Amino acid sequence: MRSSALRFGIGGTERREDWLAVEEPLELRLTRPAGPLTLAVLMRTPGHDRELLLGWLLAEGLLPAEFTLQADEENPNLWTLETPDWERVSAGARLGVSSSACGVCGSGSIERLAVRSEPVQWAGPPLDWRSLADLPGRLLTAQAGFRQTGGLHAAGLFAADGDLLGALEDVGRHNATDKVIGWAWEQKLDFSALILTVSSRAGFEIVQKAVTAGLPVVVAVGAASSLAVDTAQAFGLTLCAFTREGRTTVYAGEERLEAEKNSSHAERS
Amino acid sequence: MRSSALRFGIGGTERREDWLAVEEPLELRLTRPAGPLTLAVLMRTPGHDRELLLGWLLAEGLLPAEFTLQADEENPNLWTLETPDWERVSAGARLGVSSSACGVCGSGSIERLAVRSEPVQWAGPPLDWRSLADLPGRLLTAQAGFRQTGGLHAAGLFAADGDLLGALEDVGRHNATDKVIGWAWEQKLDFSALILTVSSRAGFEIVQKAVTAGLPVVVAVGAASSLAVDTAQAFGLTLCAFTREGRTTVYAGEERLEAEKNSSHAERS
Repeated sequence: MRSSALRFGIGGTERREDWLAVEEPLELRLTRPAGPLTLAVLMRTPGHDRELLLGWLLAEGLLPAEFTLQADEENPNLWTLETPDWERVSAGARLGVSSSACGVCGSGSIERLAVRSEPVQWAGPPLDWRSLADLPGRLLTAQAGFRQTGGLHAAGLFAADGDLLGALEDVGRHNATDKVIGWAWEQKLDFSALILTVSSRAGFEIVQKAVTAGLPVVVAVGAASSLAVDTAQAFGLTLCAFTREGRTTVYAGEERLEAEKNSSHAERS
Repeated sequence: MRSSALRFGIGGTERREDWLAVEEPLELRLTRPAGPLTLAVLMRTPGHDRELLLGWLLAEGLLPAEFTLQADEENPNLWTLETPDWERVSAGARLGVSSSACGVCGSGSIERLAVRSEPVQWAGPPLDWRSLADLPGRLLTAQAGFRQTGGLHAAGLFAADGDLLGALEDVGRHNATDKVIGWAWEQKLDFSALILTVSSRAGFEIVQKAVTAGLPVVVAVGAASSLAVDTAQAFGLTLCAFTREGRTTVYAGEERLEAEKNSSHAERS
């Protein structure tokens, strides 16, 4: 969206037409005999809405085996999920919003995730840190919206050899991840051979989405949080953070990386 | 939290003990005759939890006139709100989670906000863009957690003359904003004379929180979204984005800035 703006700087003041990252709410409703249930209202950048919702359902552990998912004919921001499995989806959605009875803590969050998710498996060859450190730069080449607005996050899926398979952008970093997960699900890609790269930090929710979807490697440009690291360790996910300018820091799952440690140490000594 | 990590870079590989930004869930429950209702589960950095919850309640338009707010004796991540106004809080919380019946769109979000919020008023003197452009740098001096972890956002409240009154950090940018709003509320500061500065982007939710709390000026380091700008314009809020390195871009409420435009244009021509 274009917006009139006034830019102030040392060189003077300038009236500009800026491109803004578009943010609009998207509502997903579940059809039930008792009437529709709102599953989510996501503040997202319009575009790839189907992928967003598929990825969100998958990453929340709510995607049913049989379903139809469609936008309202008049309101493209309103989508409906119809499924014979509506009882399970409805119960799962409630579980996601509220919390378990045992009180809340980081380990409780990991335990709840364990109810629906298995440890992730990596089907690719050993990972090379140099190749991982390159991924954010490769992702950036696909971030057309970010170049235009400076206000979009991106998430990309890469093959083990560093090939960018798909990348999508959104004003929300969780949405960008959901979009690319939904896209890969529609493409029927093998998640156990994919590397998720995000232009943002890696918090609990990003790692939780990767675990639930079965993505074994997450590479983040920014920092990882304590709970993201604990969750990655609990589910055998390789978590690389601060990945930029030819370096990366591995906080979990380093056993999937080629044993460069000794040779590098040798080089330095 | 300290975590063992393996840092790979061109200079070699290094085993490190990194400080991670702590992320833990915090649950807020409302006491009702029918049993407790979970109002929110916030993934937050522990510390200033009372301020976080006060700010969250205030910015969601849910803070009752009379209440007690206290942590569980055994579980510091579980807080309880007791209020004679529990029916209104409970109804308001439901309204926040689900959406209005008229379907979802950006203008619908603004309309819903208008039900509970007035346009904001600025009680300070005309704003000087140079002073605004300095605020993120001043905020950075208060970001001790960010310097340690690289994984925390900050929100600060400044007086019109650029004095930093208070700043708080959190792994979530919305939480950082809630914390500093809750802190200012406890300090009984006059919100109409404060400038909110965030180390992050300004999306709809940040502007919504500012509007609901009555904060008339928001300065963001990063980009503003389309809905953030629309909301700022609708409620008379001054929204400055891309504020760094001696410049800022004003997307709404520029009438509060001193009329430098003409003189600068004159200088350049």
